[in-house]
Amino acid sequence: MSSYTQESAVTVLGLGPMGRALAGTLLDAGVRTTVWNRTPGRDRDLVERGAAGAGSVVEAVAASGLVVVCVVNYDAADAVLRREEVTAALKGRTVVNLTADTPDRARDTAAWAAEHGIGYLDGAIMTPAASIGTPGAVFLYSGPEEVYRRHKPVLGTWGGTHTHLGEEVGRAAAYDIALLDIFWTAMAGYAHALAVAQAEGISPRELAPFAKGIGAILPPIFEEGAEDMAAGTFSGEGNPITSAVSSMAHIVHTSERHGIDAGVMRAAEGLARRVVGLGHGADGFLRVADVLGRQARVGGTRE
Amino acid sequence: MSSYTQESAVTVLGLGPMGRALAGTLLDAGVRTTVWNRTPGRDRDLVERGAAGAGSVVEAVAASGLVVVCVVNYDAADAVLRREEVTAALKGRTVVNLTADTPDRARDTAAWAAEHGIGYLDGAIMTPAASIGTPGAVFLYSGPEEVYRRHKPVLGTWGGTHTHLGEEVGRAAAYDIALLDIFWTAMAGYAHALAVAQAEGISPRELAPFAKGIGAILPPIFEEGAEDMAAGTFSGEGNPITSAVSSMAHIVHTSERHGIDAGVMRAAEGLARRVVGLGHGADGFLRVADVLGRQARVGGTRE
Repeated sequence: MSSYTQESAVTVLGLGPMGRALAGTLLDAGVRTTVWNRTPGRDRDLVERGAAGAGSVVEAVAASGLVVVCVVNYDAADAVLRREEVTAALKGRTVVNLTADTPDRARDTAAWAAEHGIGYLDGAIMTPAASIGTPGAVFLYSGPEEVYRRHKPVLGTWGGTHTHLGEEVGRAAAYDIALLDIFWTAMAGYAHALAVAQAEGISPRELAPFAKGIGAILPPIFEEGAEDMAAGTFSGEGNPITSAVSSMAHIVHTSERHGIDAGVMRAAEGLARRVVGLGHGADGFLRVADVLGRQARVGGTRE
Repeated sequence: MSSYTQESAVTVLGLGPMGRALAGTLLDAGVRTTVWNRTPGRDRDLVERGAAGAGSVVEAVAASGLVVVCVVNYDAADAVLRREEVTAALKGRTVVNLTADTPDRARDTAAWAAEHGIGYLDGAIMTPAASIGTPGAVFLYSGPEEVYRRHKPVLGTWGGTHTHLGEEVGRAAAYDIALLDIFWTAMAGYAHALAVAQAEGISPRELAPFAKGIGAILPPIFEEGAEDMAAGTFSGEGNPITSAVSSMAHIVHTSERHGIDAGVMRAAEGLARRVVGLGHGADGFLRVADVLGRQARVGGTRE
């Protein structure tokens, strides 16, 4: 408890499920914690547990050297932070922004912070609110290493693993985007599979153990695929992309025969067919990543 | 070796990587094995290992009571099996069709087999050719239980787990479709994530350990989601579908800003937004499966 000095005092702006979990574990660790939420009344149980409630953002910010922001997106974060009196109050303090948005928005907010003498770290929380304070929590950060090191002890009270990804401030958001891309695409596939299975008379509980089995083979395949892409081999030995295209066509056909929208799989099949059309039919499926990446090299813009 | 009688003799039609693996493990187990492939010459090393090569499909079929078919799809299987002289030779024998295709095609082929006095099991192999003969192999079957029981000892020589899913012959193909739906959608998400990450300066090797982490959380989420769907609760507590929509929009924006096609995520986002539009914004993401399933109930056709 006594290891946190007054300079370790933390303000949490935004008391959704995640903000409340963050504030709660800070309190559990004995950190002097001030909380604020746009909609009032959300701070009641936190105040009962010892948090200081704040009547305004300026008051909340003034209470701590470290200000944690966890709101719905950067439009909401900007509405809270980028007001003259708040910006002035933040001068000389550090903002750790755990709000999820795009890397561009993170870079833009970092530039605003630098312009106003505000320390800034961008972060992403990769696990649900219930994981906060447990070994399962996963936090990513980017921005000045010195700022990260200075605040690491207090951030560490949230439990789990904390990784500083580098000084380029958009990096945490970029990892977040890529990892959520995997997660939500996989979930869209699972939702679709449940619907198609049910139309075929297979209940969710019947499918579940096999779906778990498919989920379990993904991590090693992801790892091998990354190595394959890093090496530029894209080996299709035993499982060429033409075979994936054939499976995808069967899935689309079965789905649509039941009147079930197959738009996600149609888009995936279209990508795979484009890669086959470019002469990569004997390669492995991750040649898709290479072909998509060429678009970025040709047509993309980079900071 | 001696536990397999002459009636256990097996013919393998189709010597792609999978057919060769199946024939190879039969030989290793001492099963009298006859092999045939449309393109000649593929049987050479199997014949050296003790297989009988066959000059024609009729000759191959006549050699064994159990005929295993493993070709590219049911068009190819039909081209091999549904010829007058082959159909006649198959009478009184059993076909185990491990060719991947749609449940409808499996049902159609089962009907053809019944009409011609041919025993028929449909099957799906959920793991790659390299898994055959190892504990990791996963085989699914559907069709008459009696036929499955009779041939189980010899099918068991392929190793791994063998599951009979029921008498409805389309069931193995339906599970196959649903599970490949999960797998290939997830792989499309991973390929896209690798491309977006690389455009953001994150290498495949840098992303891989975090991607593995995302993959590892999927199996328990799949299990909870199936329970949630079976119970009809679709709880969005702590992670409502509106939050998924927000993440999806960030992914699409970041991807397209780099000039990278986001068609798969756009389709997934469209589904999620449709579900929110129907008034389910506070529910969990798998409400998507329920809404897709309603399409099937209204517009779908069932055998």
